[in-house]
Amino acid sequence: MLDPVRWKTRSGEILAARPAAGGEVPPGVLRIIDQTLLPGRLVYLDLERAEDIADAIRRLAVRGAPAIGCAAALGLAAAMQTVRSGGADYLRSLRERAARLEATRPTAVNLAWALRRCTAVIGAAIGDAPDSNAEELNARLRAEALDILEEDIRMCRAIGEHGLPFLHAGARVLTHCNAGALATGDYGTATAPLYRAHEKGWKLSVYAGETRPLLQGARLTAWELGRAGLDVTVLCDGAAPALMREQGVDLVITGADRIAADGTVANKIGTYGLALAAQHHGIPFYVAAPYSTFDPDLEDGEAIPIEQRGAEEVTRCGGFAVAPENAGVWNPAFDLTPAGLIRAWITDRGTARNPKELKTLCSDHE
Amino acid sequence: MLDPVRWKTRSGEILAARPAAGGEVPPGVLRIIDQTLLPGRLVYLDLERAEDIADAIRRLAVRGAPAIGCAAALGLAAAMQTVRSGGADYLRSLRERAARLEATRPTAVNLAWALRRCTAVIGAAIGDAPDSNAEELNARLRAEALDILEEDIRMCRAIGEHGLPFLHAGARVLTHCNAGALATGDYGTATAPLYRAHEKGWKLSVYAGETRPLLQGARLTAWELGRAGLDVTVLCDGAAPALMREQGVDLVITGADRIAADGTVANKIGTYGLALAAQHHGIPFYVAAPYSTFDPDLEDGEAIPIEQRGAEEVTRCGGFAVAPENAGVWNPAFDLTPAGLIRAWITDRGTARNPKELKTLCSDHE
Repeated sequence: MLDPVRWKTRSGEILAARPAAGGEVPPGVLRIIDQTLLPGRLVYLDLERAEDIADAIRRLAVRGAPAIGCAAALGLAAAMQTVRSGGADYLRSLRERAARLEATRPTAVNLAWALRRCTAVIGAAIGDAPDSNAEELNARLRAEALDILEEDIRMCRAIGEHGLPFLHAGARVLTHCNAGALATGDYGTATAPLYRAHEKGWKLSVYAGETRPLLQGARLTAWELGRAGLDVTVLCDGAAPALMREQGVDLVITGADRIAADGTVANKIGTYGLALAAQHHGIPFYVAAPYSTFDPDLEDGEAIPIEQRGAEEVTRCGGFAVAPENAGVWNPAFDLTPAGLIRAWITDRGTARNPKELKTLCSDHE
Repeated sequence: MLDPVRWKTRSGEILAARPAAGGEVPPGVLRIIDQTLLPGRLVYLDLERAEDIADAIRRLAVRGAPAIGCAAALGLAAAMQTVRSGGADYLRSLRERAARLEATRPTAVNLAWALRRCTAVIGAAIGDAPDSNAEELNARLRAEALDILEEDIRMCRAIGEHGLPFLHAGARVLTHCNAGALATGDYGTATAPLYRAHEKGWKLSVYAGETRPLLQGARLTAWELGRAGLDVTVLCDGAAPALMREQGVDLVITGADRIAADGTVANKIGTYGLALAAQHHGIPFYVAAPYSTFDPDLEDGEAIPIEQRGAEEVTRCGGFAVAPENAGVWNPAFDLTPAGLIRAWITDRGTARNPKELKTLCSDHE
């Protein structure tokens, strides 16, 4: 049996399990920041029941593909701590809770992947030893969830290391949306090299585009970087080209939601315009993402489906109408940045300078 | 004496004076839309006293340089209707009210220009006939204010005519911020060719960038164009390059706050990025502005001072914190678009294809 552990990330807050007050086997608790209340209020949610964890994922209290995967696995382990029956009964309870969690965000690949990995491991354990008791199975489940978290932490760290050579003390860095600690189990993807540089004592000037419509750059990236002691300045998305022209920017770095075989990057709406402006000003534009974001089956960017989101994200803000209710709205969640605008792809497996290198790097050759 | 007139713009709402119910000399009333409440609520303000008119200008209930000029002149005429003493007493009252109005927005060139023009005319009238009575002077003042409005209407109409050849039925047009009817005495500058095309029965698809931080595109442009029956779609500023790439845009047209001798255009933040993206996609980018926006004394764009505005415009929205209160904020009101990105400058004096033509066109050769 594992010792009671604090399931926590580097920042100590995104995911954690509360050890029991007494010496009993602790009830599982998933502790997460409610990201919907940031940056106005910092509120932690201590979640024990599968339905509460599902609800938190559904209403975006935790968001970002890697963070959702970690939260789902750790949440599943937490929610199973109260189960007393072992063997087939345990597996039934596990599958029921996993299904409830998986239904929260149907298109989140990491969510389904993490939950299926957990149920497969327990299925195999019961196959090997059908009379395993709940305590043994809980320990196995917690270990698997912690493995998922550990792998995510290693992924972030590797991206941080591979991205570091593109930075220097005093660098002025522009980023977009939140591919940060709040979106992963550790210190983010696009932000990983920034945190790593900060650890080395390099002083950076980070500019965070606010990222309309949902303002993840202003609400989340500025919050987490500022909290970690980095110097961060928020600007409206339309101001970024003027920033490059007037203040100077040394590099742009963003995350990626999906990367096609030709190197085209689908990322938060606004990324493409930043890449165009960066090219015009001779500023290198980098994309940082786990290698698993690369999808060799998508031949080119045009094959990436772009989700259109609800009009109310644009027409309302803070409960107020900011556009006429009857106006048309064009609100794509992502845009496509072609490979020709990208100086390098920084992954946990290393850095690629062109789509061919990227393909070699990210193919499943292991 | 003038007949009681409805001082109204083409749209019938932006500026109007209410004739008296009875047959008496009407009390002056300036009727304006309170733009601060758009698009959520359409509220008219009927203003009679100089201090109420000054307050409306100060708190941006009316905004846009030409509209402010018209509102100040018409407002001054309205506020003087209750004055009963003629001659030097009248001039003293006029100067006192004009000073109160002029103090509201110290940098608004049209405001001071319109008010000084009104006081100069009355000063001259009293110089010619020192015993002019209040009724005669009020008639002269109203006539001057109406002249200012008429000239503004002619300016908008001329820009509409000169811009029309760049449009065609079915054109997809992207604009930014509000250089529209709400900002002028008639149907705007950047929007003038759009209204003119609509009058001709050409169906356009207009895209209005929301224009963070103050959202004039979403709040005002989408509202006024939609109300006039044009097809208008709102998008976040960062989505414009993706719009060009995916949906196609035939032209971009914006207003200008100031134009330097080398053709550089200072306009609402975000304009420069649109011009860069338009160039990349081979989409013509037009600037529409009154010739008076051209400043031959500013040798190049770098000489144009760029106002930095308050952080709270970016960090708060609808009363909610959308960025950490302690984050740095970079919030320039305008950016600079160099002449090389501009296909043509459309003015009330005609269209210029390059800075040399623009200089010839806008020099005070009259």
